[in-house]
Formats: sequence, structure tokens, C-alpha cells
Amino acid sequence: MALRARALYDFRSENPGEISLREHEVLSLCSEQDIEGWLEGVNSHGDRGLFPASYVQVIRAPAAEPPAPAGGARYANLPPGGFEPLVPPAAFNPPVQQLPPPAAAEPFPLPPAPYSGSYQPSQGSDDDWDDDWDDTSTVADEPGVLGSSYPDYDAAGGGGPTSARYRLSTRSDLSLGSRNSQQPGHLHHHPGGGAKSSATVSRNLNRFSTFVKSGGEAFVLGEASGFVKDGDKLCVVLGPWGPEWQENPYPFQCSIEDPTKQTKFKGMKSYIAYKLVPSNTGQQVHRRYKHFDWLYGRLAEKFPVISVPHLPEKQATGRFEEDFISKRRKGLAWWMDHMCSHPVLAQCDAFRHFLTCPSTDEKAWKQGKRKAEKDEMVGANFFLTISVPTGPAAALDLQEVESRVDGFKSFTKKMDESTMQLTHTANEFARKQVTGFKKEYQKVGHSFKGLSQAFELDQQAFSANLNQALAFTGEAYDAIGEFFAEQPRQDLDPVMDLLALYQGHLANFPDIIHVQKGALTKVKESKRHVEEGKMEVQKADGIQDRCNIISFATLAEIHHFHQIRVRDFKSQMQHFLKQQILFFQKVTQKLEEALHKYDSV
Amino acid sequence: MALRARALYDFRSENPGEISLREHEVLSLCSEQDIEGWLEGVNSHGDRGLFPASYVQVIRAPAAEPPAPAGGARYANLPPGGFEPLVPPAAFNPPVQQLPPPAAAEPFPLPPAPYSGSYQPSQGSDDDWDDDWDDTSTVADEPGVLGSSYPDYDAAGGGGPTSARYRLSTRSDLSLGSRNSQQPGHLHHHPGGGAKSSATVSRNLNRFSTFVKSGGEAFVLGEASGFVKDGDKLCVVLGPWGPEWQENPYPFQCSIEDPTKQTKFKGMKSYIAYKLVPSNTGQQVHRRYKHFDWLYGRLAEKFPVISVPHLPEKQATGRFEEDFISKRRKGLAWWMDHMCSHPVLAQCDAFRHFLTCPSTDEKAWKQGKRKAEKDEMVGANFFLTISVPTGPAAALDLQEVESRVDGFKSFTKKMDESTMQLTHTANEFARKQVTGFKKEYQKVGHSFKGLSQAFELDQQAFSANLNQALAFTGEAYDAIGEFFAEQPRQDLDPVMDLLALYQGHLANFPDIIHVQKGALTKVKESKRHVEEGKMEVQKADGIQDRCNIISFATLAEIHHFHQIRVRDFKSQMQHFLKQQILFFQKVTQKLEEALHKYDSV
Repeated sequence: MALRARALYDFRSENPGEISLREHEVLSLCSEQDIEGWLEGVNSHGDRGLFPASYVQVIRAPAAEPPAPAGGARYANLPPGGFEPLVPPAAFNPPVQQLPPPAAAEPFPLPPAPYSGSYQPSQGSDDDWDDDWDDTSTVADEPGVLGSSYPDYDAAGGGGPTSARYRLSTRSDLSLGSRNSQQPGHLHHHPGGGAKSSATVSRNLNRFSTFVKSGGEAFVLGEASGFVKDGDKLCVVLGPWGPEWQENPYPFQCSIEDPTKQTKFKGMKSYIAYKLVPSNTGQQVHRRYKHFDWLYGRLAEKFPVISVPHLPEKQATGRFEEDFISKRRKGLAWWMDHMCSHPVLAQCDAFRHFLTCPSTDEKAWKQGKRKAEKDEMVGANFFLTISVPTGPAAALDLQEVESRVDGFKSFTKKMDESTMQLTHTANEFARKQVTGFKKEYQKVGHSFKGLSQAFELDQQAFSANLNQALAFTGEAYDAIGEFFAEQPRQDLDPVMDLLALYQGHLANFPDIIHVQKGALTKVKESKRHVEEGKMEVQKADGIQDRCNIISFATLAEIHHFHQIRVRDFKSQMQHFLKQQILFFQKVTQKLEEALHKYDSV
Repeated sequence: MALRARALYDFRSENPGEISLREHEVLSLCSEQDIEGWLEGVNSHGDRGLFPASYVQVIRAPAAEPPAPAGGARYANLPPGGFEPLVPPAAFNPPVQQLPPPAAAEPFPLPPAPYSGSYQPSQGSDDDWDDDWDDTSTVADEPGVLGSSYPDYDAAGGGGPTSARYRLSTRSDLSLGSRNSQQPGHLHHHPGGGAKSSATVSRNLNRFSTFVKSGGEAFVLGEASGFVKDGDKLCVVLGPWGPEWQENPYPFQCSIEDPTKQTKFKGMKSYIAYKLVPSNTGQQVHRRYKHFDWLYGRLAEKFPVISVPHLPEKQATGRFEEDFISKRRKGLAWWMDHMCSHPVLAQCDAFRHFLTCPSTDEKAWKQGKRKAEKDEMVGANFFLTISVPTGPAAALDLQEVESRVDGFKSFTKKMDESTMQLTHTANEFARKQVTGFKKEYQKVGHSFKGLSQAFELDQQAFSANLNQALAFTGEAYDAIGEFFAEQPRQDLDPVMDLLALYQGHLANFPDIIHVQKGALTKVKESKRHVEEGKMEVQKADGIQDRCNIISFATLAEIHHFHQIRVRDFKSQMQHFLKQQILFFQKVTQKLEEALHKYDSV
């Protein structure tokens, strides 16, 4: 029992039965054998519990054991070496997080998407609320990185309905039908094991699985419970194209204008505040980027099967530059548009608080903030708030659902590739117009001007008009060069903004699909168990009903995505083409002006 | 007297008193001392005469003289070494002309101009008429060579009225007032010395001077004589802007169409014939490029102060390629336009013969051709055909003429630079449109198509119209890319054709200006001589009158140049801008089509 391990990374316990680790901390291990990726041990605070095996390195030199320190240990299995770190304390302070643990950190390691892809939800403490963590982030996102931002979904999932990680769960079928007490002898304890555990279908021990993290698994297994207020209810209804979110009865928009620089602490700190005016209240409020960021964090946590639009990218430097502010404002406006367009997001409390709480009422803001952070209807409980259509007409065919979700998965992959491609092309095209196209037209203008200057030496009175017309033609081509350089701002930039927003959604969907597929697998499992007489029909029916709720929500979300996609791409393509037409008309007009100069030659 | 020299280049005698040389030929020299660039000697045919000193290398090894060959020599001063070449005969056959003699060949070494700049006038033998020398020329012109095609006029002329070469003549002022017999003792003989030589103003011994070559000097000195038929008379009149050529009372145009491949010698030889239809006769004739080339040669020889338009470039290879034929046809059409537009050229006999002689009447063609080649009103005699305005109103102020010609010189230099610049820019711009612009628009089209293909995977009936609209937009951008690639043919190519034609004219003017300046200098000289009592006033007046004829002709030619320049650049710029406008309208129309596709989304 004198086995020890050193923590390679920080790890924060988030479930009962888990313990937190600090990088470099030495722990005593209860056993060297991991239980599906988890080890049990005692940390330097004397807390005993589970932690991910991949976060520690077992120390293989137990030969000479130093004497136990004075004062002994709180726990019998406290290792003789105590909890003193193997490295000097200086290495702890500050506790810099190095490379994140590659495997266990995220079920799908997402490459940074142009729209705040490597987004980290804030932990929402009032104390650090006024810190400028949004603006001073040293980890700048890298928008426009070449190559697909699409998570390596197929590689992880193998194209089948269950991902490699997810199979960790289905492999534990050996313990099927057994109670906790019947689990392998060396497993004293497992994450969440202390909670209600009436499931007879196996649980996924990998808490990093989105299915588990989202609360989807707990919900499907019937472990969620809570009181759903009428105001929290979300309805999926049957529309002409299948399940969809019930429309917001009070639709509204919200403008984001007038980004202004503000200061506090007597000018020590400065930041940009945006004026928001929701159309339903007409009352303006001012919000900073970090307020948006906080809201995003809450929403991403609360809604596991909804694609919360990503915020525009963070930027480490130049945050007060006009171009950046203007670009961010446009990004936030797009974000706001998608928030207001979503029947569920538009009506949720945290968003309402964000849109309506007076900017000057600090107290009311903090109250609403705390309330949102204490929302119990998150995770597994969130699914309780979803009402779905009932009756034979609304019955979902499992195979059809699976095929539709698979189809959507292929679609998102292809759409992600093509939006990446279009973004790249548009970016290059814009760059060429600003540089090459402009230069070429201006060189032509310059040459015409040169010819007109030569002609001015001709001493011929009768050619003065020609010389002027030539000079004007030169200027016209110079102006056309400028038109080219200015044009991308009018047409290509908005297209790229839209594409960035959609790349954010496309980065969300793998998780959403993952939750739905996890639920579907549970249904299949339970059906097999019923056939094998290992499960009561009633229990299996409950699993299927709850899975259907997730499927309805997923299909509604997919429908919503398609709806706003068609709406957005239609309007943006129209905008783009109109701007292009205006541009070419402007060029034509300039040339016509030049042509008319020759009338008097 | 045993001095020998070896010819470095071929030299063909063209004046009495000169002898021809063949490259490598060994000559005996009468004296080692050159007379203003000329040496006297005996060539291998036993002919004695002058040849350019720079064409030979004096052989400095006269020590061991071989015995005189049997049979002796025809001439007393025949060198003992005879005329046997120092190199084996094989080196003579074929007599390949190597690098042209750099200094003596041309008063202004002209770099090849885009329009047949290194043109060599044909020698006009009926025997070789059917040879395809026009097409099989191994010395291809190099059109579009970077750098100015403008002759190094200032370098030669030093910016003053007399060029370095020309000063050779004025330097011989020492012999002023002397007769031929009083010329430096060692000069037994000089070019043209056998002809009428009543001049008291010095002659330019450098026969390569344009002033001399053109016959301008001989004319000014009153040496030209001949019977001018009424039909040969050319009138300079006073127009609102000064001297101009009397308008052609029967103006006409001539179309050049239908280039067709024809064969002869049972298909052994093939060539392209162009159909010419002069508007005044309406009778079509067929002419080959070499017929144009022959005509050009005749005209360039006959008219020393007229800028005969250059023919479009020759091309060594690919002369049957469609693009080349089409390009040549357009070039010939431009050339024809300038021929018909010129009051003097349009009415001259050789051109009339060219335009009217039936293509099938071989005999008539050869007769007219021979007649043109035997035309006596060339060179010095040509100037006899010019009638100028008389009376006090028409009196030319020498200084004003000089200032106008100098101004025109500056103008042509600047115009040449700027047309070179514009040609280069237009060429680059065309290249960019055919490559880069096309590629960029097609990449955008490709990306839109990619997005529409992704969208087609969406399984949503309500988005079919969007997908189609996107696909159409992709095709529209693809088409716009093609528009860009096709456009230069419509607008930039004609501009470049025009510029090439004008570059030909600009290459002609230094010679024309040179002749006028030569005449002007003779007047100044004669005035000085009169002041110094060395010349009779009457003689000086004759020189001035004849110089005035050249000045009138030069100013008329300058005026004509400005007139057609303003006309051509006006119409070409209008054409260019109209084509550009049509192009951008076509692009706009394509985009509008695409935009309308979104109406039904």
C-alpha cells in the first residue's frame, strides 16, 4: 500500500467521490490497478477518492521508505512519504497549467474554430467579475487557420453510432444487471456512485464522455429529478417538416451599436461597452464582451442539445483598434441575431437577465447572475424541462431517427469543409482585390495618365480635349482600383462573418449528435436486455421515452439549424450579390463618365 | 603601297566611286589614312574605289611579300599578294552576314520596333519574287521587347540641331568656298564626286547620314533635277494650324479580310493571301504579306520626310496559326488605314498599283512593279515634287520652325516612352486577366458550388431552391472568370495594336527630323557665308527656298501625325471604354441573373 503517484496535471473534482489534484502533487494509491481509466488514492489534503489514471504517473521506487512524519496521517493508508511535493514549492507558484492532458481533457479535441473555437466557459465568480480576463487573455485564437476546423469526428466515432470513448461504456456489459455491490471487487467507489443509482443499464465510467457530462446518460437512465416550473418548460412540436421547437410567441430582435471606450478605477482600466437595445423592451443596456462571455458559458452549460452560437473570437492585442472593435461589434450582432432567433435561447432566464437588467444596477445584476449560476435545471435536469408531442402520430421510428441524425452528421461534415473552403477563397479573393486587382487597375490608370502627359507636349490646340479625356480616363482607372480595394468590406467580409458564425455551430453539433446517439444506444441495449429477460419492459419503455425526448430535441435543433441556415444564406447571398452588382455598376458608371469626356474631342 | 586590309563585313557599293566588299575579302589599300571614315583601295575583282574604313581591318604584317602571281595584275597598285582570301573559300560559301557593322550601318542604330522595326527594304527582283522570303525569314523580329524602342536620338544628336555624324560635314568648313580640286590632297575621289557638284556649302562625306541618304542634302544644295509630272506633284497648303498636306480629293478606305491559305508548286509552297477591297474601286484583289513588304520598301525609299507606317511584325514560326493570321490581318488593316489616311501615300502610284492591279494578271503586276522600282522621283528628286505655299503669309520663320520641330522631337520622345509604358501595362493587365483574375473569380465560383453541393446533402425539401441558387451563383462566377479571360481580345488588344503602329511612326520621326535639321543647318551656314562675303545672296536664297520646302513638308507631316493621332486615340479610347463598359455590364447582368435565383428561395 506504499504505492505513490505524482500528478502530471491539475485536476478539479466535479463529482462526489472524486478528488482534486494539483500538478506535481504526490498521492498515495489504494491500488495500482485502474478501474476503466480511474485510480483511487489519497491526495496531499488527506482526501480520498477517484481521479483519472492518465493524470498521474505512478512512482516506481518504493524500496527505501523514509520514516513517517511527526503528527502521523489522517488516513490509515497515508503513505510514509507524506504529501510533500517532490519538486520545490517555487514550482507551484503560480500554478501554471501546461499542456492540457491530451486524451482525457475533451472527448473531441476541437481545433480552434474562427469563432472563439477554444472557448473556455467562465466559472462565474463575482469576485473576479471585474477582472479583464476577457481582454487580457494571452491565448489568442487563431482565426482562419487553414485546414478543417471540424473535429475529427469520424476518427473518434469510427463512423458508427458509438464513438471509441463511448464503447468504454458498452464494453462494461459484463457488469450488466448487477448492482453496485456486484461490481468488480477492487472498485470501492465510482463517480456519482453515491447518488441515486437505480439503473440496470450500464453506466459510462468515463465522465469526459459528452453523453455523461451533458447529463444525457443520467437522464436516460431515469436519474434526473426536479421540479419543472411552467416558465422553464420547453416544447417540441410537430411542424410540417417534423419536430421543431415551439416558436417564441413574443419574438424580438436586439441591436448592438455604439461600441464606446469606458474607464474605471480612475482610468486605470478601460474597456469597450456596447449599447444593446432589445426590440421588445426598447430599453438600452450596456454590456461588455465579458458579459457576453459569461452568458455564453451559462448557456453552453445549461443546454446540452442546443447549439449555442459562438462568440466572435477573442483577441489578445489591439483590442481598442477601430477595425477590431467594428469587426467584434458585427460578430456580436450576428451572435445576437442567432440568440434572438432561437426559440429556446431567446426565452431563457439568463439571456433575459442579460438583455434587461439595467447596466447601472450592480446589485440586481449580481442577483440575476447568481440565480443563473444556481439554476438547477441544468445537465440531466435540463432534459426534464422538455415536453414532446405525444400520440401515435408523433411516434418516432428509431431507425428513421438514426438515419436522419447520420445524414445530418454527413451534412455538417461536408458543410464544414465547404465553409472552410469558401472562407479561405473569400479571404484570398479579398486580399487579391485589396492588393493585386487594385494595383493592376491603378497601373493602367497611371499609364493613361502618362500618355496624357506626353500628349500635353504636343503644342496642338485641337488636341486639348483629348488630353483632358485621357487624363480623366487615367483617374477613372485609379478610382476603379480604389473601388476594388474597398469592395471586400462591403461584400466578402459579411459573407466571412456569416461563415465564421456557422463554423461555430458546426463545431457544436458533434457533441449534440453524440448525446443523441448515446441515448439511442441505451435504448438498443435495454431492448436486448428485455429480450434476454434481464430487464422489465416498463423500465425499458421509460428509457425509450426519455431517449425520445432527447431525439425530439435533437431533431428540433437540427430543424432550427436548417431553418436559420436557409434564411441566413439566402439573405447573405442576396446581400453579397447586390453589393457586387452595385460595385460593378459603380465601375461602369465611372467608365461611362470617362467615355463621355471623348464626346468633345 | 603593299598595305592590305581584310573586310570584316559585307558592304555593297551604292554610289559611284564606291566598291563592294565581301566579308573576309582581302583588299589592297591606296593609303592607310582614312578620309573622314573612308578608305580607298582595290577589291578582289580589281575594282578601285572607296569603302567605309570601319568595315575593314588593316593587315599589319607586310614584311615577307610573296612573289607576284603569274599573269600579273590589271592594276599597277595591285598588291603582290593578289586578291586571294586569307581564309579558305569554304568560309565564303554561303556568305553569312554576321553582326552588322555597329557604327557605319545606320546613322541611328534602331532597336527592333514592334512593328517590323528592323525592316529591310526588298531589292525588288522579279526573279526572286516568288520566294517566300517574307515568311521564311530566319531573323524574326522581337516585338514587345522591353525598354524603349526609341532610337538613341539625343545621344547621337546631343540635343542640338546637328548630330555627331552631321557635324562631320560642318567640320569640313575648311574646304568652304573651295572647289573639288581644292579638297585635301589625299582625297582623290569621294562618293558622288563624279556627279554635278556646284555646291559651295560643304558636303557631308558620310553617306550613312540620313540627311545625305535621303537626298535631302543634294536637294538643298540644288543638285536635284528632274521633270515633275503633274500627277507626281505633292502640295503643302496652309491650314488653320499651319502647313498641312493637301487633302486627297478622292478619299477612300480599303478593307482587308478573309486571310486564306493558298498553295502553289502543287502544294509544295503555301502562303496566306488577304482579300483587299478598296472603297473607290470596289474591286477585290488578293495580296500576300510579301507584297505589302515590297510596297513598304518602295515607299520608305521614295518618301524621305513622310512617316510610312510600319507593317505588322514578321514571325518566323507558326505563320499559319489562326491567332497569328488574325493578329497580322488586324495589323495590316491598321496599316492600310494609315496608308489611306495619308494624302501623299494614298495617292502614290506604287500604292495604287498595289490596290488595283488584278491578282491574276501576273504580267501587269510585274510591269507596275518594275515601273515603281524605276521611279526617278526618289531621294533628292522627290523633294522636287513638293509644292509649297508662297507669298508673305506663307513665309516660314526659321526660328519658329526650329522651335516647333524641337518641340515635336521632345513630344515624340515622351510619347514613345509613354506608349512603351502603356503597351507594357496593357500587356501585363491582359495577362493578369487571362490568368489571375480568371482564376480568382473561378475559385470563388468553385467554392460557391462546393457549398451548394454540401447543402444538397441537407435532406430538407425547403432548401432545394437555395441550393440551386447557390449552384447558379457558382456557375455565374465561373462564367465571369471566363469573361475576364476573353475580354483583353476585345479591348486591350486593339489598344496594343494601335500603340504598335504608333511606335512604328515614332521610330520614323528621328530620320525625318534629322533631314529637316540638316537642311536648316545648311541655311544657317549659307547665311554666315553670305555675311562673310563668301557666298552670293542668290545662292543662299536658293538654299533657303529649298530648305523651306523640306520644312513645309516636315511640318505638314507633323501636322498629319497629330491629326491622325488625335483621331485614332479618340476612337480607340472610345472603343476601349465602350468595350470595358460592355464587359462590366455583362458581369453585372450575370450577377443579376444569379440574384434573381434567390427570389424563389
